[in-house]
Amino acid sequence: MTPSLRQRTWLQLSGDPVGDGRLSLVNWLLVVVIVAAVTCSIVATEPEIESRFGVQLNALEYVFGACFALEYAARIWTAPENPEAGSAGRKRLRFILSPLGLVDLAVLVVTLLPMLMPGVAVLRLARLLRLLMLAKLGRFSSAFHDLARAIHDRRYELYVTISLATFLLLFGAAALYLAEGDVQPDKFGSIPRALWWSIITLTTVGYGDVSPITPLGKVMASIVALAGIGLVAMPTGIMAAAFSDAMQRHRGEEKD
Amino acid sequence: MTPSLRQRTWLQLSGDPVGDGRLSLVNWLLVVVIVAAVTCSIVATEPEIESRFGVQLNALEYVFGACFALEYAARIWTAPENPEAGSAGRKRLRFILSPLGLVDLAVLVVTLLPMLMPGVAVLRLARLLRLLMLAKLGRFSSAFHDLARAIHDRRYELYVTISLATFLLLFGAAALYLAEGDVQPDKFGSIPRALWWSIITLTTVGYGDVSPITPLGKVMASIVALAGIGLVAMPTGIMAAAFSDAMQRHRGEEKD
Amino acid sequence: MTPSLRQRTWLQLSGDPVGDGRLSLVNWLLVVVIVAAVTCSIVATEPEIESRFGVQLNALEYVFGACFALEYAARIWTAPENPEAGSAGRKRLRFILSPLGLVDLAVLVVTLLPMLMPGVAVLRLARLLRLLMLAKLGRFSSAFHDLARAIHDRRYELYVTISLATFLLLFGAAALYLAEGDVQPDKFGSIPRALWWSIITLTTVGYGDVSPITPLGKVMASIVALAGIGLVAMPTGIMAAAFSDAMQRHRGEEKD
Amino acid sequence: MTPSLRQRTWLQLSGDPVGDGRLSLVNWLLVVVIVAAVTCSIVATEPEIESRFGVQLNALEYVFGACFALEYAARIWTAPENPEAGSAGRKRLRFILSPLGLVDLAVLVVTLLPMLMPGVAVLRLARLLRLLMLAKLGRFSSAFHDLARAIHDRRYELYVTISLATFLLLFGAAALYLAEGDVQPDKFGSIPRALWWSIITLTTVGYGDVSPITPLGKVMASIVALAGIGLVAMPTGIMAAAFSDAMQRHRGEEKD
Repeated sequence: MTPSLRQRTWLQLSGDPVGDGRLSLVNWLLVVVIVAAVTCSIVATEPEIESRFGVQLNALEYVFGACFALEYAARIWTAPENPEAGSAGRKRLRFILSPLGLVDLAVLVVTLLPMLMPGVAVLRLARLLRLLMLAKLGRFSSAFHDLARAIHDRRYELYVTISLATFLLLFGAAALYLAEGDVQPDKFGSIPRALWWSIITLTTVGYGDVSPITPLGKVMASIVALAGIGLVAMPTGIMAAAFSDAMQRHRGEEKD
Repeated sequence: MTPSLRQRTWLQLSGDPVGDGRLSLVNWLLVVVIVAAVTCSIVATEPEIESRFGVQLNALEYVFGACFALEYAARIWTAPENPEAGSAGRKRLRFILSPLGLVDLAVLVVTLLPMLMPGVAVLRLARLLRLLMLAKLGRFSSAFHDLARAIHDRRYELYVTISLATFLLLFGAAALYLAEGDVQPDKFGSIPRALWWSIITLTTVGYGDVSPITPLGKVMASIVALAGIGLVAMPTGIMAAAFSDAMQRHRGEEKD
Repeated sequence: MTPSLRQRTWLQLSGDPVGDGRLSLVNWLLVVVIVAAVTCSIVATEPEIESRFGVQLNALEYVFGACFALEYAARIWTAPENPEAGSAGRKRLRFILSPLGLVDLAVLVVTLLPMLMPGVAVLRLARLLRLLMLAKLGRFSSAFHDLARAIHDRRYELYVTISLATFLLLFGAAALYLAEGDVQPDKFGSIPRALWWSIITLTTVGYGDVSPITPLGKVMASIVALAGIGLVAMPTGIMAAAFSDAMQRHRGEEKD
Repeated sequence: MTPSLRQRTWLQLSGDPVGDGRLSLVNWLLVVVIVAAVTCSIVATEPEIESRFGVQLNALEYVFGACFALEYAARIWTAPENPEAGSAGRKRLRFILSPLGLVDLAVLVVTLLPMLMPGVAVLRLARLLRLLMLAKLGRFSSAFHDLARAIHDRRYELYVTISLATFLLLFGAAALYLAEGDVQPDKFGSIPRALWWSIITLTTVGYGDVSPITPLGKVMASIVALAGIGLVAMPTGIMAAAFSDAMQRHRGEEKD
């Protein structure tokens, strides 16, 4: 029995039609469209490009809008092919209310809305929301589920290290507030202000817009920097280890 | 036999009344009060907020003071419920003199003192001491004991790597003192002054307020930076590994 | 039977004539010539040195050209000694068209061309191409094959982490474009412009030429910095782990 | 039979008289003197301190000189107690010519020389050499032998990663020399000049004294930064791993 058009469309959209771990042709096209749409919305924020290629970029938006509308319609249409229990209407509703379904809808709205209401402030915010499109790429990869699980497994370590890092950030800010609050009141005049210094220093970014100038402030900043950099890097280190574990587990399962 | 009020209060305060690894309701409330009190004392250092919400912040201080006084009194009252040997008075004294008991007292004094003596200089220092409140959160977690043990286990590695890092910091400072001491006397005119450069460079913060300008200084700074960054990061790396071990051991024990 | 001159030359050029894992004398000489040639072409870009030692550097170029020409000729001449199937001409052609053969040719052309046509613009570009010579050093080490294999093994992890890092770089740029686009239009006036901030911050370089100045911008930058630094460092961490694995595998094979 | 004074002195000087892994009293005193002497020579470079406490610091130098002279004499006197083959004179000569013996001599000369010849230039250089005293602390720890061995074990990895890092530093410098050489000739006008940018960026220090200003330069710098930071950090990561291995091996041997 040859599969129906709806069956074939669902298989194409669901990512892995042949079961060999490769993306389907339709999904490859969707990846290209998503990357192109995100690139366009990023590039369009540049005034020089907007003023020169504004018309072309606008035309592309219509193409992207059509693609996303078509995809959304197709996903709703083929939702009943999902081998779960329930009626066709129920399956369609479940897709619409699923996280990925909501992202699809949000991306569609965000793409079409600025065409209908070309208000400046709205457009600007909407453009940012288009970055959500990248989340759609997550559909094509089970890695993000593994990652979420791995982070959940280490929530205890994360809680402790984030506590320690927060304490150190506050302690560093308080130390420099006491040391330099009177000398540079605009930069260290309160702990919230000094927190900017503390975060930029302990992440080792170090812009240099805020730095101690008195000997006492420099001594305190040195102690805070030497003691704190490792602690502030710990939560991200644990995240990286969790991610690495998730990847290895994923590969192990794939091999089985 | 139903437990007495003192028994139930002690169980609530001791953190894990049912033995299922969850915080008791009273402890959750204490965590909220501590975080709120610390946030208040941080926010209150900002002059703009102080001038606008000073009255409200002051009122909140009375609430926090009452909470901490109540907690401290309850902990002394319920101390005899502690299943250790000794008379009730002895157990109470032991709690008062224990590290956490002293932190409780310090936090209470630091919260109440500025209300009694609103002297500016004292207030400012006292505000910093309120960060001690965060240490109270440590009561709710045995992770810090594991961490302390793990650091103790690696004291030898820490001693050697801190020695190496110190040597490199001093060597870098001496190298740039020789190279640029005459050109930028205010920044590299002595080894203690050059140490500020050395610490900010080898922690990779790099504010840019102090950097070599002569070719010789740049060559020396390049060598110091390339050779030293790994060495200065080593103690914090060892601390992170010790912490990670402590967490795993802790989880292993919990599972048993 | 004593080996012919061509056989001995080929053994010398092929890197390991005695089979004890050491470089042959001829290869040591070639390493010295390559390092010297690269150093010369780097140093020659410095106008002060060019104006003072230009004649000497030019003379050295003729020496390097002669060495590379001789090496290239010798490699073509001895190619038939390669114990593969095929006629002498075929083996020579295969060497000429192999990646390393093409690098040899490119380096030779790049060294000789500026002597024949001393056009300024061409010279400048050609000098950069001379850095290709360093790739010739890769011939003497099988480590790069191991590395390439290890990276290929982890292409899945790399794909996921690079996606995450890219998303975070874009998200950070978008956040600061929204927060500071109006205040600092030349720095945050579009997402592509804000990307420069985002890359320099999340790699923790932090030049300080671009940094937020409004409280909202600082809060957003703090969140992006604290959340993102670990994620952006993840692809390079995976590369480092892949490399470390490749090295250990290589050593394991060497021991067998 | 009670040990002679020379035997007891030798045991005290050799570090571990009872064999319980603890430093002897004499060695503890020496550690204190060395740390004090290094601190003095660092602090004395600060003109403000020199002008105020110059006399006291000078007096301390005589104390340190006496201590080091006494220690050196005692080490030569007790050298024959070393349980090696050879006559007493041979053992003494062997100590004098051993690396640690030479450091002892150098430190002694460097401490005494400025008292005999108070020439300014000599003093300044001599002060730096006093940092050698810290190397004397190495005598009290076998960790540095383990470290040296571990680095030697990984010399192959270090060679490959240092090659890659060097290539990337040169490539980054060349890229920005091409992109910004004409715009900022004093900063990127030659590859050696651009190397300063390349090193400060790829170590993530990022002072901000040198950074690209053209769009092309920023794009190239972004690519170099994203690709290169992991590679440049690799040699130091390998060193850290080697060190960590050495420490574990050392502890394993101690337990046996």
